[in-house]
Amino acid sequence: MTTFYDNRRPYDNYDSTTKEWDAIFIGGGASGRFGSSYFRAMGGNQLTIEADNHLGGKCCKNACVLHHYLYEIAVELDKARIWDKKEYWPKFPRKNGKVEILPVLRDYIIGREYVFDFMFHQSKEQLKLQFLLNQRASVLDAHTVTVPGKGEFKTKNIIVAAGAGPSVPPVPGTDLKGVYTYADFLELDYEPKDVVVVGASKSGLPWACFFNAVGCNTTVVEMLPALSQFPIDDDVREYTLRMMKLRGLPVLDETRLVSINGSGSVKSVTVKGKDGVEKMIKADLVYLGTGCTPRSDIVTPIGVKTGPKKEIIVDRHMATNIPGVYASGDITGGVMEMWKARQGGMMAAKNILGSPAEFETELFADTLHTFYETTWVGMTEKEAREKVGQVFVVRMPIQGYKNWLPLPLCEGAMQYAHQWPDLSGFQKIIYDAKTRKFLGAQHVGYGGKDSFQYLLYLLKKGATIDEIANLTELFINPTHFIQLSRLRSGMKNLVDLG
Amino acid sequence: MTTFYDNRRPYDNYDSTTKEWDAIFIGGGASGRFGSSYFRAMGGNQLTIEADNHLGGKCCKNACVLHHYLYEIAVELDKARIWDKKEYWPKFPRKNGKVEILPVLRDYIIGREYVFDFMFHQSKEQLKLQFLLNQRASVLDAHTVTVPGKGEFKTKNIIVAAGAGPSVPPVPGTDLKGVYTYADFLELDYEPKDVVVVGASKSGLPWACFFNAVGCNTTVVEMLPALSQFPIDDDVREYTLRMMKLRGLPVLDETRLVSINGSGSVKSVTVKGKDGVEKMIKADLVYLGTGCTPRSDIVTPIGVKTGPKKEIIVDRHMATNIPGVYASGDITGGVMEMWKARQGGMMAAKNILGSPAEFETELFADTLHTFYETTWVGMTEKEAREKVGQVFVVRMPIQGYKNWLPLPLCEGAMQYAHQWPDLSGFQKIIYDAKTRKFLGAQHVGYGGKDSFQYLLYLLKKGATIDEIANLTELFINPTHFIQLSRLRSGMKNLVDLG
Repeated sequence: MTTFYDNRRPYDNYDSTTKEWDAIFIGGGASGRFGSSYFRAMGGNQLTIEADNHLGGKCCKNACVLHHYLYEIAVELDKARIWDKKEYWPKFPRKNGKVEILPVLRDYIIGREYVFDFMFHQSKEQLKLQFLLNQRASVLDAHTVTVPGKGEFKTKNIIVAAGAGPSVPPVPGTDLKGVYTYADFLELDYEPKDVVVVGASKSGLPWACFFNAVGCNTTVVEMLPALSQFPIDDDVREYTLRMMKLRGLPVLDETRLVSINGSGSVKSVTVKGKDGVEKMIKADLVYLGTGCTPRSDIVTPIGVKTGPKKEIIVDRHMATNIPGVYASGDITGGVMEMWKARQGGMMAAKNILGSPAEFETELFADTLHTFYETTWVGMTEKEAREKVGQVFVVRMPIQGYKNWLPLPLCEGAMQYAHQWPDLSGFQKIIYDAKTRKFLGAQHVGYGGKDSFQYLLYLLKKGATIDEIANLTELFINPTHFIQLSRLRSGMKNLVDLG
Repeated sequence: MTTFYDNRRPYDNYDSTTKEWDAIFIGGGASGRFGSSYFRAMGGNQLTIEADNHLGGKCCKNACVLHHYLYEIAVELDKARIWDKKEYWPKFPRKNGKVEILPVLRDYIIGREYVFDFMFHQSKEQLKLQFLLNQRASVLDAHTVTVPGKGEFKTKNIIVAAGAGPSVPPVPGTDLKGVYTYADFLELDYEPKDVVVVGASKSGLPWACFFNAVGCNTTVVEMLPALSQFPIDDDVREYTLRMMKLRGLPVLDETRLVSINGSGSVKSVTVKGKDGVEKMIKADLVYLGTGCTPRSDIVTPIGVKTGPKKEIIVDRHMATNIPGVYASGDITGGVMEMWKARQGGMMAAKNILGSPAEFETELFADTLHTFYETTWVGMTEKEAREKVGQVFVVRMPIQGYKNWLPLPLCEGAMQYAHQWPDLSGFQKIIYDAKTRKFLGAQHVGYGGKDSFQYLLYLLKKGATIDEIANLTELFINPTHFIQLSRLRSGMKNLVDLG
């Protein structure tokens, strides 16, 4: 592989004769890079300062992409184990059922260099961004940024997009060897056997499923009732949990992490269950999927207001309380998702360059990765029944049908579903029975995340069941919503299907 | 498994005291069953007569579902072979690299009974359809249908939805043992080694890729220039073909099937290439992916007009030339896709029951399965440049970038892409540079078929790049269109990206 720069050293790509920038972006992650690109595309003169050795941020370094990578490996290993029963499939497992983790991580570490390289090339050559890499910015005031060895940069605006770092719960033992967050997980240098994942969260569960799929004894510990933080119905919640349980991955919910125990390296964790009784779980690895904390310290000294979780408080124009200082991405707290980071950067650019736009973050589609994707958008059935009253629901598998549902409810599960219920799926769509409007949808399977972003668009447009029944589908799967809705949509008074 | 009926015998589920039906559907496949459901949902009194032993038609018997099943097995076997290089993956291949086909087909044959059972249950208990199974209808006139042993059924309308059967090319040897179409493929009773697939078509290629993936020596023979029948650009065509070639699956295009040779069973095929030279290819199995012919014979005796390919000619209301006689689905010819069958049935129901609707079939998204999905919607880049002139294109991988693209362009391919280029992907989206309107998109990878039906909706709505940049995406993959479009959309004068 040929890379375009030496990623161990500071790297400059900017016009050093610039007296004053239109905007300086602090951070070249998802929000900083997309914000910079939009800003540059609109004609603004921008400089992006990134402390790490690449553009693209933690997403491709050790967060979202790693999360998806581990999820995808978990899915494939899971399928390989299930299909092992079939004579035409390669035998599995090997080496007593345990798959080595270190080669999996090594591949990732090699692979991400290509991603860094591509991001660099695209940003520099195609998007014409100006940037510094491997250099840390300090904010002196709303119009002055300094970088060691470079002195001061003057700017009309600052967009703070420095992201967030891993949160570590305040319990004893988090400094033991063998305790990881996403940020240092790639430094793993041994093959664990007994794993405890703290947090049945979006960032905890993909790791837990990966550990389970490679053959580690894995337990998930969660403070809240399992999956209660997600806007999904009980049936979807139960289906998601059942699929994990089937694979030997229990979630100990309403259970608090008391301490991580060991001497030098981790040996066990102590938890306290809903019964108030403490118990000890053996562990040679503890993975903390306990969220992130915004890196707002960089601008609190100049008076930028933050909230209780250290998040920078911004209005719908991405402006902070200090004129000329904007913030976007994970540093603004709330849900820390790519769309929010990318769109937030774009919104900041628009507002600075006189094309005012309000950022609405209330309504979005989201996915939880386990061995499946659990995907949702809009209202749950429960919420809809409370708020709207008369509700029409299409649901698969249908309730009370005694054979296992033979139809594939997710991409890649076709006829397998009948023999391996583990590879089926679950889906529901909710309509207002009076106005016939689409209110929400939920899906457990594969492929949901490719379609739900567009279902969100239909939701925002106020699409009715009749419009959805008129869509031109591609066979089945998440599409199933279209064909199933069509089966009933001739009715004046809608009756549930499923 | 408990089934609800004995599928070897005729089965009745209808009110035999009915003097006159509002509509009789001839055929309970995709079009007949969806048409019947919509008709019933609108309050019409319907009877559906199906010659086969189940509802749902050839789709779940031996066509679309089998096609997807074989495609999905091809994809998984392909991945297993590629990943075999990795120490953490189960070893592959076994048994000299050849996977047995017969157990794969046996699983399908077991599995489809569950599908039949579910369709029966849903149609009878939930959709309240009235139907006959394992019984063949004859059409006496526009208002009279007969069934052996039952006498005459009177009806206000007839909807002919009897589908299409496999087309067999007029060459010698098609009656040899070892020559299959989709309709009899499940009768296969030996393990082939050398396979020739006739037709680089939507129905030929998934079979060809399956044969290749299980380890058969496979050759595809195609009359036209390869993939020229699909509205895709040359770069997408070349990428699709290159991915097949990488896996040892050549397409002999502009090559005509002259004869199938053998004595009793097939031994070889003779083809004539573009150079006019005949050559012989060894084969112990020939698969004909050469399309379907409408079963219009059932109504030509009463004067229903058909076209040159035996298709029933219908107007946009699904009406034939005979008042009271409608037709929908594959029997009407043209593109034979599920959406067309299902929607066509619905359109017939609407028009008969006084809720007039016109069926537009011009614009649709479509997928070709190989080891990947090649998916498209709207105009190609070439067509757009000819018709619209100034065009803006976002394309990945970007042209001229010297390292292999490390970003996953398709679901399930994450970081693998950099080490196994075979598992990357290709995508492009085309906009009108002046109006900024979305004109078309193409994708090679996985997951495209879950999103392109919604991209079609955006296309019909006249969505612009700015609207697409404002969508709230779920990470990347087919979504990539959203984020990539966003990177440039700040520009007044759009410049290609990719």
